[in-house]
Amino acid sequence: MSDARVIVAGASGFAGALAASLVHRHPRLDLAAATARADAGERLDRLYPRYRVPVELTELDLDRAADSDAAIVAYPHGAAAEVVARFIEAGLAVVDISADFRLRDPATYEETYGEHGAPELLGDAVYGLTELRRDEVRRARLVANPGCYPTAALLALAPLAEAGLAGDIVISAASGVSGAGRGGGGRLHFVSVDENFTPYGVDAHRHLPEIVQELEVFGNASRVTFVPHLLSLDQGLMASCFVAPTRDVDADELRRLYRERYEGETFVEVVDDPPGVREVRDTNLCRIHVAVDGTGRALAFAAIDNLWKGAAGQAIQNLNLMLGFDETEGLL
Amino acid sequence: MSDARVIVAGASGFAGALAASLVHRHPRLDLAAATARADAGERLDRLYPRYRVPVELTELDLDRAADSDAAIVAYPHGAAAEVVARFIEAGLAVVDISADFRLRDPATYEETYGEHGAPELLGDAVYGLTELRRDEVRRARLVANPGCYPTAALLALAPLAEAGLAGDIVISAASGVSGAGRGGGGRLHFVSVDENFTPYGVDAHRHLPEIVQELEVFGNASRVTFVPHLLSLDQGLMASCFVAPTRDVDADELRRLYRERYEGETFVEVVDDPPGVREVRDTNLCRIHVAVDGTGRALAFAAIDNLWKGAAGQAIQNLNLMLGFDETEGLL
Amino acid sequence: MSDARVIVAGASGFAGALAASLVHRHPRLDLAAATARADAGERLDRLYPRYRVPVELTELDLDRAADSDAAIVAYPHGAAAEVVARFIEAGLAVVDISADFRLRDPATYEETYGEHGAPELLGDAVYGLTELRRDEVRRARLVANPGCYPTAALLALAPLAEAGLAGDIVISAASGVSGAGRGGGGRLHFVSVDENFTPYGVDAHRHLPEIVQELEVFGNASRVTFVPHLLSLDQGLMASCFVAPTRDVDADELRRLYRERYEGETFVEVVDDPPGVREVRDTNLCRIHVAVDGTGRALAFAAIDNLWKGAAGQAIQNLNLMLGFDETEGLL
Amino acid sequence: MSDARVIVAGASGFAGALAASLVHRHPRLDLAAATARADAGERLDRLYPRYRVPVELTELDLDRAADSDAAIVAYPHGAAAEVVARFIEAGLAVVDISADFRLRDPATYEETYGEHGAPELLGDAVYGLTELRRDEVRRARLVANPGCYPTAALLALAPLAEAGLAGDIVISAASGVSGAGRGGGGRLHFVSVDENFTPYGVDAHRHLPEIVQELEVFGNASRVTFVPHLLSLDQGLMASCFVAPTRDVDADELRRLYRERYEGETFVEVVDDPPGVREVRDTNLCRIHVAVDGTGRALAFAAIDNLWKGAAGQAIQNLNLMLGFDETEGLL
Repeated sequence: MSDARVIVAGASGFAGALAASLVHRHPRLDLAAATARADAGERLDRLYPRYRVPVELTELDLDRAADSDAAIVAYPHGAAAEVVARFIEAGLAVVDISADFRLRDPATYEETYGEHGAPELLGDAVYGLTELRRDEVRRARLVANPGCYPTAALLALAPLAEAGLAGDIVISAASGVSGAGRGGGGRLHFVSVDENFTPYGVDAHRHLPEIVQELEVFGNASRVTFVPHLLSLDQGLMASCFVAPTRDVDADELRRLYRERYEGETFVEVVDDPPGVREVRDTNLCRIHVAVDGTGRALAFAAIDNLWKGAAGQAIQNLNLMLGFDETEGLL
Repeated sequence: MSDARVIVAGASGFAGALAASLVHRHPRLDLAAATARADAGERLDRLYPRYRVPVELTELDLDRAADSDAAIVAYPHGAAAEVVARFIEAGLAVVDISADFRLRDPATYEETYGEHGAPELLGDAVYGLTELRRDEVRRARLVANPGCYPTAALLALAPLAEAGLAGDIVISAASGVSGAGRGGGGRLHFVSVDENFTPYGVDAHRHLPEIVQELEVFGNASRVTFVPHLLSLDQGLMASCFVAPTRDVDADELRRLYRERYEGETFVEVVDDPPGVREVRDTNLCRIHVAVDGTGRALAFAAIDNLWKGAAGQAIQNLNLMLGFDETEGLL
Repeated sequence: MSDARVIVAGASGFAGALAASLVHRHPRLDLAAATARADAGERLDRLYPRYRVPVELTELDLDRAADSDAAIVAYPHGAAAEVVARFIEAGLAVVDISADFRLRDPATYEETYGEHGAPELLGDAVYGLTELRRDEVRRARLVANPGCYPTAALLALAPLAEAGLAGDIVISAASGVSGAGRGGGGRLHFVSVDENFTPYGVDAHRHLPEIVQELEVFGNASRVTFVPHLLSLDQGLMASCFVAPTRDVDADELRRLYRERYEGETFVEVVDDPPGVREVRDTNLCRIHVAVDGTGRALAFAAIDNLWKGAAGQAIQNLNLMLGFDETEGLL
Repeated sequence: MSDARVIVAGASGFAGALAASLVHRHPRLDLAAATARADAGERLDRLYPRYRVPVELTELDLDRAADSDAAIVAYPHGAAAEVVARFIEAGLAVVDISADFRLRDPATYEETYGEHGAPELLGDAVYGLTELRRDEVRRARLVANPGCYPTAALLALAPLAEAGLAGDIVISAASGVSGAGRGGGGRLHFVSVDENFTPYGVDAHRHLPEIVQELEVFGNASRVTFVPHLLSLDQGLMASCFVAPTRDVDADELRRLYRERYEGETFVEVVDDPPGVREVRDTNLCRIHVAVDGTGRALAFAAIDNLWKGAAGQAIQNLNLMLGFDETEGLL
């Protein structure tokens, strides 16, 4: 017997398919429906053989939403807001993997993504970077699941920012191709990506306002530069953060600060060597290494799997909390 | 008939083998010898089938050095200095691909690499970043070929530094595996690198003093942070540079500055989009893109092939100049 | 409380490390020791961060062997026999991942691998291709875990061979690099394998006698040709089998034959499309597709993860049976 | 001054773009036009930065065809025939990279590809596997450039077939992703191909009739089975051929036979070890290794770059011959 029935809306994309698979394998969740638009009627285990979820993708039937307890929405940004609103209305706990409820300021949202479909809900959404907002997530009806880059960058920067130590910040990040989604046309054709490494979105990537917003929670007022790069691999994301500290720090102090901050966390590990993204592939882990270079600059490196901790894994972690379960349930 | 006979000493490593292949194909150079220690007696086209150089690796015979006109030395750092000294003594033009003559200050060399084998030559060596030192290279008897990271980073930063615009500098770089050499043990085993991306040398990589030394030539006194990452690909290197400008600049001004600085250069292209390393694979090109982000930070991205412009290609470019040839000879 | 204590001997290699990790995570097994020679004293989670087994590798202490219930031996061939003999003597159930007990004929073993260290045990060992020998495995004290290529090839060929339908056989197989082990020198350096695909062992690969021996169990007397290729990927193995049937068969009959043969098997799936190795990565699955081409030749394709079903996964599957557990325990 | 003006029709696809680049760099050819449909107006060096051809793609203007001397057509099959006919009419030498003129029997063409647009020309086309048809190519007005798989398979099999030694034949081949073209939808998305290896077209791949047709030229009447696999790499193709010889042969005899057959060929090398596809990347080479296994089966492995010898490189090789140039011109 499952404890909660969960709809995964938008299960044909990378993040949605993994979310459906995690719900399917979860000991206390039941996959009520895995929905898709273009791919409705297709079997999920044909689209994603590796996940082995023997389920047919269906069209979303909002009239039956109330039969379920929770929903994970993995729509493209802009398309999620309305559906989320309907799920909330029907009384479901909702984790939205899209960007639609991540930015609290409607003007910033509009500037970044265009018009919003349910601005009245913006205020209710909790930004679900679990390790930073655990209590709020527990009480939330609507969790805005963080973007993949913000997840790694914020976990890497939060201890510094909380301690008031974060001055000028540069985030040089890199992500595997699954982070860019199933579409993408020729840009994501194997031949375009193979043996390649390319910066992109260098002027203003959409994840920047999200990072800035959350750092401001800690009172950070520093200049933040963020540039992502595309890696020729499948799953994996690294945020390499370069921070001018507001006062002298050494590596020992930094390590202590980070170990204390993340003590007891199952999914954040402060490690002695710079982590490779391969170490966290197919896990919900974030591995962080900190150092100070010869100029006194603080360095923080955070490695995650963009589809897990950067999307579907963290969505389950949040849903677990919202439903009163142990947050690691189904993720180990 | 060739115009010059060239010894490639240390032709069994990645850079040396490519250098031997470039000499072999060069219309005006003749490969007098391709030498190796452990691999002496082995055929180069068995070790590197792709280069198709039908030549046997031999042990270095310094007594016959004077029969040649020039030498390219591709030994590990520390091992090159003595051999270089002997070649110079025998009257050869020498391009040293190792790190042995890149640092002008003996103390910095010792701190970075250990004892030096021919400190008396340090003052004579020209740092061969061709586009920045063309005239000196032309007159040199000994050229210290720049490291792969410094090549990309300095080409990306020089126009800003020359213009006195470079304030605080962060260089986040990434290189394919050939940059790490043929050894490396388990760390470079396919399974360790595949689907991985890892920062390394985060506290103090050996290429940092080289970058700092050359920026100081332009009067740069800024803090420079440099962190490299290992890419799961063969050839390709990206230097992503983040610079706090000393006064406001916009993207147009930057682009103009870079286009003017590199006008007429065959091997440096200032491009409109961030370049991918795949674009320059197997070429001597450096492709640079510049931008300014919302915080006013100047961004410069430089992509090279670490084995070509970052090592053997630039060695040939320098040797061409030293021998009075067109610098592009054998490189297009 | 665990039901059985298991020693993994040789846990520093790819297969041994995965075996240790599977034992560590297994609900009914306890990792009594993970042993290594050169790497003794090193932590397993430093060598293999991804597996997250927080255990120190120790030297094998045979005097304390009897404190455990079972052992998985992942030594190189030749080195395993003696250790296996000592474990058997101490009363342990043993799964040997090496090749030492796979060939029943001592002469064939010697010809293929050299002298044998415990020939008296050859007759007792059960060849542990679970789906073909389940009952024998259940009663065994010593299971010879099959090679990776034989596992895929035999699962692909067994239904045809059992039905007396297998005439002339060609097996063209391909494996990811983890199948070649942690050593391998320059041949397995990232740069040698990247963007490459190479046949090897074309005259006589060591896995051929194993395949022939097991096909003979079904009375097969056909000519068997086997050629492996090295894939530029980490985990994954494909056996593409081309069989001249002894009488006309069509694709429908073949599919029926295979579905019936593998009905009820958890780890063997007969699928409608040719499987990709990516589909079975990090699982103990074997996916098989059968077809008949225009010339009437029967085609059978089997995809496995060489480290799982081809080594450590099948070892656990066998150990489960030997210990009276459900064979899927700890593998789903 | 160039000796011949060449139109490349269909220069936006992988093979067409490389053909345009090879014409552009060719010492005796001039790129009169590089045409495309959807991509007309786009610059070729934006679509394929690596090739560095500073030319705008234009729509094909057949009225001006007669201003040129030759055309390389790289359209999809079915679309090429009509354009080829118009070029021939205008007096141009034509190399057609599409499949439209490879099959001499109209019925086989129709069965394999559908209706033919210019069946009257089928008889005039020469099948341009250069090493097997050099004299005919020299005299041809229309050359049907072979498919990538047939090129490798036929070069591997021809010496055996010519000598009447080829009995039952199995060809297990594998190609990098560029062989599948720029389209392909999700199947060729990086994430689908990465770390994967998949057989495809297992029942009847379109290149089979082409292989059979050409083997029949040598009187071969054997059963031929052909199965391709998709490799997770960019450029490279291996044909692994398994042949039951019509009489006993040993490896020495085979090697002699192959060395004699290909003596003096610039682009075919008979080598002592199984070649990897990486060895021939970005070259027009075919490297072949032959062996005989313990059952007496003859094995022949041929490695090519599917875009070079398997498409655009061989097209230039053929065009060189048609125009009376040295066949290696522009290809070394």
